[in-house]
Amino acid sequence: MPAVLSVMPTIDANSPIGVFDSGLGGLTVVKQIIQFLPNEQIVYFGDTARVPYGAKSAETIIRYSRQIVGILRKHRVKMIVVACNTASALALEVLCKESRLPIIGVIGPGATKAARSTKRRKVGIIATSSTVRSGAYAARIRRLDKTIQVFSQPCPLFVPLVEEGWLDHEVTHTVAREYLKALKKSGVDTLILGCTHYPLLKNVLHSVMGPKVMLIDSAEEVAAQVRRILIENQMLRTRLSPLSHKFLVSDEPQNFKRLAQRFLGGGVKEVHLCHV
Amino acid sequence: MPAVLSVMPTIDANSPIGVFDSGLGGLTVVKQIIQFLPNEQIVYFGDTARVPYGAKSAETIIRYSRQIVGILRKHRVKMIVVACNTASALALEVLCKESRLPIIGVIGPGATKAARSTKRRKVGIIATSSTVRSGAYAARIRRLDKTIQVFSQPCPLFVPLVEEGWLDHEVTHTVAREYLKALKKSGVDTLILGCTHYPLLKNVLHSVMGPKVMLIDSAEEVAAQVRRILIENQMLRTRLSPLSHKFLVSDEPQNFKRLAQRFLGGGVKEVHLCHV
Repeated sequence: MPAVLSVMPTIDANSPIGVFDSGLGGLTVVKQIIQFLPNEQIVYFGDTARVPYGAKSAETIIRYSRQIVGILRKHRVKMIVVACNTASALALEVLCKESRLPIIGVIGPGATKAARSTKRRKVGIIATSSTVRSGAYAARIRRLDKTIQVFSQPCPLFVPLVEEGWLDHEVTHTVAREYLKALKKSGVDTLILGCTHYPLLKNVLHSVMGPKVMLIDSAEEVAAQVRRILIENQMLRTRLSPLSHKFLVSDEPQNFKRLAQRFLGGGVKEVHLCHV
Repeated sequence: MPAVLSVMPTIDANSPIGVFDSGLGGLTVVKQIIQFLPNEQIVYFGDTARVPYGAKSAETIIRYSRQIVGILRKHRVKMIVVACNTASALALEVLCKESRLPIIGVIGPGATKAARSTKRRKVGIIATSSTVRSGAYAARIRRLDKTIQVFSQPCPLFVPLVEEGWLDHEVTHTVAREYLKALKKSGVDTLILGCTHYPLLKNVLHSVMGPKVMLIDSAEEVAAQVRRILIENQMLRTRLSPLSHKFLVSDEPQNFKRLAQRFLGGGVKEVHLCHV
């Protein structure tokens, strides 16, 4: 998108960090960024009108992600975090090529943490169908260490189960036992939660995989990487005025506001509808 | 949308029938229309890039439905069938007000069939959260017969279970038992399958509700209503040239084509990508 690049303003360290996800899930990443970088302002975009991304084609995910990056740029963000695993897996490369802003996804940080953690050199990945099909996690881990064996499993029912609130329900345990059967047999000692919804199923996943398997939730690693990039590029916010994070959603804001408030606490005031 | 109305061409009986759904589910309605009206041509739009509609707001569903009606009008359809229950519940009224074309949904036909079928005057409705919240089925049934008691139950996990292909899985039985517990207790003798995906769960629903409860799948009733409207308005296709139905989807066409072919048989040749 050269037209966009040519009008790109100089990056201002006091500008906000842009974060986007297909819906609510990316708030797990926002929470970590706020914890690691309490003086940074955030503009979050949740594509709640078109959620979920997990079974859609690369072409559609790329088209939607480009559109959202355009919206975040209008809010003059200084960097962008693709908090959605599916968009990170399918669109990050294209987005980075088209922009001079730093753009990071959640695949790299998750893969790095897993590669560091595994002792048996066997890593499992659970994710949406599109993320698994992309092979992005496996490719990234093998680039870090060729000797690591990677086992992937799509878990399409986990997102709807989380959204139904059945976080510790008998059904969720049964579904998890079925999905994770092959991964358990393979002997992985590290399991990447390759979808922002999955950390909410930690109890179920622990009970099915057993206490010796380490669950990798990349949010913390992503926040650490954001901090590193901002420090290295001298882009930390220096202004000390009070913060007001901004939340944009493509579907009705009220529902999002209620859930986001519950999730992030008091800081969720501005939630705006933004048509895509 | 007066601008659209003012350029509306005269309706040609040889024009196709427009059918739309949030995804694949509306093909159950297409199948019935083809069976009832084998000389009619169909243009189908499946909003596969933004599926599912079932948890989204009325405002978004109306916006998307308007857009799709605009696309179908460009294909010069002579009438429109809103095959999606959620869009029928939330957008049909607005769409009808804005258009001179006959537009029908699936709520009316399903409600009529249920009101005729119930002997105990107790009807159950299972549907997506947005359809249940709209109260559209209950309002319609009460308009037909005030003495009928209506019991509604949202079943958000049914669509993902169908899409996972778990049509007769232990998990699906457990989920159905949980969702249908209150409906069973209420003593309904008729159950409206208020989502185009649910007919695929007929076995599970029969086994949970028992053989005495009649399951209402509105597709047949919708096709009968389409035939009635075309006959009454002298709008039956008179041309005898061979038919070629057209399918438009907002996400990648290949996957849709494979599934639609499996579902409708040989007639699915033209599947086009149409961005929304």
